[in-house]
Amino acid sequence: MDQPSRSAGTVRPGGRTARVRAAVLEATQDALVEHGFHALTMDQIAARAGVGKTTVYRRWGSPAGLVTDLMNEFANQSSPHADTGSIEGDLRANALMVMEALNDPRLGVTLQAVIAAATSDEQAALALRTFYLRRIDEWATVVELAVARGELPQGTHAEELIRAVSAPLYYRLVVTREPVTREVAEASVARALAAARAGAFVTAGDRSP
Amino acid sequence: MDQPSRSAGTVRPGGRTARVRAAVLEATQDALVEHGFHALTMDQIAARAGVGKTTVYRRWGSPAGLVTDLMNEFANQSSPHADTGSIEGDLRANALMVMEALNDPRLGVTLQAVIAAATSDEQAALALRTFYLRRIDEWATVVELAVARGELPQGTHAEELIRAVSAPLYYRLVVTREPVTREVAEASVARALAAARAGAFVTAGDRSP
Repeated sequence: MDQPSRSAGTVRPGGRTARVRAAVLEATQDALVEHGFHALTMDQIAARAGVGKTTVYRRWGSPAGLVTDLMNEFANQSSPHADTGSIEGDLRANALMVMEALNDPRLGVTLQAVIAAATSDEQAALALRTFYLRRIDEWATVVELAVARGELPQGTHAEELIRAVSAPLYYRLVVTREPVTREVAEASVARALAAARAGAFVTAGDRSP
Repeated sequence: MDQPSRSAGTVRPGGRTARVRAAVLEATQDALVEHGFHALTMDQIAARAGVGKTTVYRRWGSPAGLVTDLMNEFANQSSPHADTGSIEGDLRANALMVMEALNDPRLGVTLQAVIAAATSDEQAALALRTFYLRRIDEWATVVELAVARGELPQGTHAEELIRAVSAPLYYRLVVTREPVTREVAEASVARALAAARAGAFVTAGDRSP
């Protein structure tokens, strides 16, 4: 194994530059969780991370730059798509993963802080969009596999079906401010799947042969 | 008609108290659109509205109090549910109304500012939830009428179907930061309706006889 041992929690690959980045991103997430994006300052992050201000300004440029790098890191760390053998199992795995992320006291609050930041900051909005489009693209594979297996109609729009599973969970979290329960996650899967089986996700822009 | 003429734009019913409220809520919305919730201060709103600070503090208490009253006013001004004679027509009317609200340069930005505020302020979150639950309740009637007409299965969860129509639009607006187009609105209706017709919104807690 070329990888450092995962049990050596304080040893990070990549030397000083990677350690600085890890400390700065952790400080950024701490600050977002505690006070939100609007209270985030470069000086405060430098102090929290134990890193020189000049380094933080030079490498990240702005609070939105910090958030962008944090979202990149989330995308890199996120789980690959499931492969349970059925579209129902795969979409359920996706919905439960989203539910757990949104209810996680650290990750869920961080995502909400970035969603809030994105309403008024274009760079944060781009970071958010990039993160979610990568996640949607990763999970769209489960729909393509289901179409290939004959579980779903030819021409089913893979990305749209993945969006449809997540949308009701985020709607409750940030719009109606209602709990995102397991029941909500499972109902979302059942409804998206019923619509997909009925052909409601087949689009004119069908890319399948 | 007991109502004052709507064409007399500067004459508002209710005298001074109502005029003060209208000026303060307009100043609140202006401030949200321009700088967001975090920059909103009571003194700035008093100055913009041309109203004494004491009045603003006494009647609204805090920036979150201003946002709460603004959302109450939105709820009071919002359109009643459609009644086109078909569930497809009614849900399309709902989706297009949501689409127009979200894309409106003033209303859409205001709603996003309150969504952002709600991620870190409990009072703003309550105002947001109250507003949306009122809107969902208002539009749930179209589902109940459709069930009564035999267009949808007995036991279809009315509020959940209304949530399902809106969710993909809000998901694109605030999470994936993608455009909320007419195509998106119409696809959302088609998918929610396909799932409803397949019985995917029938719940164990069926309240119909």
